[in-house]
Amino acid sequence: MDNPLRLLRTDPSGARRGELRLARGGVPTPVFMPVGTSGAVKALLPDQVRASGASLILANTYHLLLQPGHELIRKLGGLHRFMAWDGSLLTDSGGFQVFSLPKHEIREDGVVFEGRQGDRPTTLTPELSIAIQRALGADIAMVLDECLPYPCPRERAAASIERTARWEARSKAAHDDPHQLLFGIVQGSTFEDLRRRSAEQIVALGFDGYAIGGVSVGEGLDLLKRVVEWTAPCLPPERARYLMGVGLPQDILASVERGIDMFDCVIPTRYARGGTLFTARGRIRIEHRNYRRDGYPVDLSCDCHTCRTFTRAYLHHLFAADEILGQVLATIHNLRYYQRLMERIRAAIDAGRFAAEKEAILGEIL
Amino acid sequence: MDNPLRLLRTDPSGARRGELRLARGGVPTPVFMPVGTSGAVKALLPDQVRASGASLILANTYHLLLQPGHELIRKLGGLHRFMAWDGSLLTDSGGFQVFSLPKHEIREDGVVFEGRQGDRPTTLTPELSIAIQRALGADIAMVLDECLPYPCPRERAAASIERTARWEARSKAAHDDPHQLLFGIVQGSTFEDLRRRSAEQIVALGFDGYAIGGVSVGEGLDLLKRVVEWTAPCLPPERARYLMGVGLPQDILASVERGIDMFDCVIPTRYARGGTLFTARGRIRIEHRNYRRDGYPVDLSCDCHTCRTFTRAYLHHLFAADEILGQVLATIHNLRYYQRLMERIRAAIDAGRFAAEKEAILGEIL
Repeated sequence: MDNPLRLLRTDPSGARRGELRLARGGVPTPVFMPVGTSGAVKALLPDQVRASGASLILANTYHLLLQPGHELIRKLGGLHRFMAWDGSLLTDSGGFQVFSLPKHEIREDGVVFEGRQGDRPTTLTPELSIAIQRALGADIAMVLDECLPYPCPRERAAASIERTARWEARSKAAHDDPHQLLFGIVQGSTFEDLRRRSAEQIVALGFDGYAIGGVSVGEGLDLLKRVVEWTAPCLPPERARYLMGVGLPQDILASVERGIDMFDCVIPTRYARGGTLFTARGRIRIEHRNYRRDGYPVDLSCDCHTCRTFTRAYLHHLFAADEILGQVLATIHNLRYYQRLMERIRAAIDAGRFAAEKEAILGEIL
Repeated sequence: MDNPLRLLRTDPSGARRGELRLARGGVPTPVFMPVGTSGAVKALLPDQVRASGASLILANTYHLLLQPGHELIRKLGGLHRFMAWDGSLLTDSGGFQVFSLPKHEIREDGVVFEGRQGDRPTTLTPELSIAIQRALGADIAMVLDECLPYPCPRERAAASIERTARWEARSKAAHDDPHQLLFGIVQGSTFEDLRRRSAEQIVALGFDGYAIGGVSVGEGLDLLKRVVEWTAPCLPPERARYLMGVGLPQDILASVERGIDMFDCVIPTRYARGGTLFTARGRIRIEHRNYRRDGYPVDLSCDCHTCRTFTRAYLHHLFAADEILGQVLATIHNLRYYQRLMERIRAAIDAGRFAAEKEAILGEIL
């Protein structure tokens, strides 16, 4: 198996610089992937996503399975063409969303859930997930894993990683698309020995890259650091490492320092639509009355279209008037903020001074 | 008073070709103005509005008065700068919205309405409307007129046009911005003699251009034709004629034939957000299941970004998934449809064959 990651440099801190070589072009790492849940990065045109600096985005298999369906997307030429995205695409397995449903049933075969009203229940198996991701034509597919609630009793987590290993073996066996990479996922909840054991199992199966799952929602930065510290050393250093669903800028900085190469998160886009904007001086709530008469751009140091063109007062007004354009402009800004953050991180690693840059960024935003 | 309209040609049908010379550039007529109610053409960036072919848009004085307030916009450099629109702007008087409020009181001084909750009632006078539009920095301002309900008893309409004439005289007296044009408005409800009398009164006052008010909502194409036929011959032929709040493509065609030069309407943008798209074969409801698997663009003959890039199936999917991007793409298309309609109309008048082109367009869409 060719290694898609070209590792360029490892910083004294542990941070890694590399390039992920994908069919549609190289992706510099560490990389942040904007989330295009339903085949659209919410509120933005593909050109606007590209202009943020993103070259790799994530789409959600579960959402696309329900609407419009992966078979339709395949018939229309695949997801890239359907959404007119000429960059690279990573799709998740769909499992995370199914396990989040109030009604789902875990079987050895897969996870059963009720789909759209009136439809029969669907069993999302490792094989079905791979077939869907193949139909979508993702550049990187993810294996189906069992996603655990947080917190999770040790006994359940211990049994779960065994099932996850079996599912990932089936995922790998089912995967037959030579143009698509397949990443494994390490689970193990909050238990160091289970995280290590899961990593060993998954690495033994052999994947193009490795993800760490189960740390995305609400566990806090300390646990995130611990899980990454337990897991990353168990992964082959030459392979890409992806921390799923993370996170805030401080989470990304802490994880890069611990050897993570890839991130995705809804935070920049979701916060934007709610009026929370990332700036070089921390987050601002644009609807706050402080910004009603503010003639400055959202972030003086930002080069995005929003900051080059509009004032905080205008964005405040658009949110007050409930104008869609407010959500568009805020999303343009937040995505560019995240890409600029990654550019700074990569430049710092290139220069061998990641630790200092991390402190500088934290000093700006916290 | 310099005439801002350069009349280039009058077609045998009665249709007129011209150019409106404004501070920010020439605007070819007949022209359709997209509506940017609150200082934003809903869902679009200024660049996207410009790309539709629009060079003159309308903004609503009433909405901007309430939020964010005209004084703030003036302090921030005027409405063009506030919304980053480098084309031309026409503002209405604010009267139409106030007269549409369930609670308003008409006095000789002006019209009284309750503003935002907790604020004292505001009296929109002719002088206040002019002052607001000056603060906004519109290229074309409109006088305050009395807007009547439809239908309206003759007696009330007769009294109303007298008050409208007094208000327009006050508007003109209050207007002192040499960089801003001021248009008068003819009222008179559905009564031929009142329309004629109103036109005589308003023309006697002398304005840079003349609008026909009170035909925008739900009166039907036949009445629209009659009102325009009564009124247009009473207006000085060398001055621009603006039919406010109109309309569907067939309304525009009928009105151009009767000598109208300018239009504005929320239809293309509002319909777009609701999933109704204009095409060379009539309107389509993109949410209809017919389009679920449709791999063609919205309109094969259209050159807009949406039609050049995406399929009907993708737009159907975006609306089904309630994605903001669906509204953005639909708005891009509908605005371009309207601008292409105006381009065809202008080219046909230039070639002296408007009547034939009108029939051709009606044959396509009806």
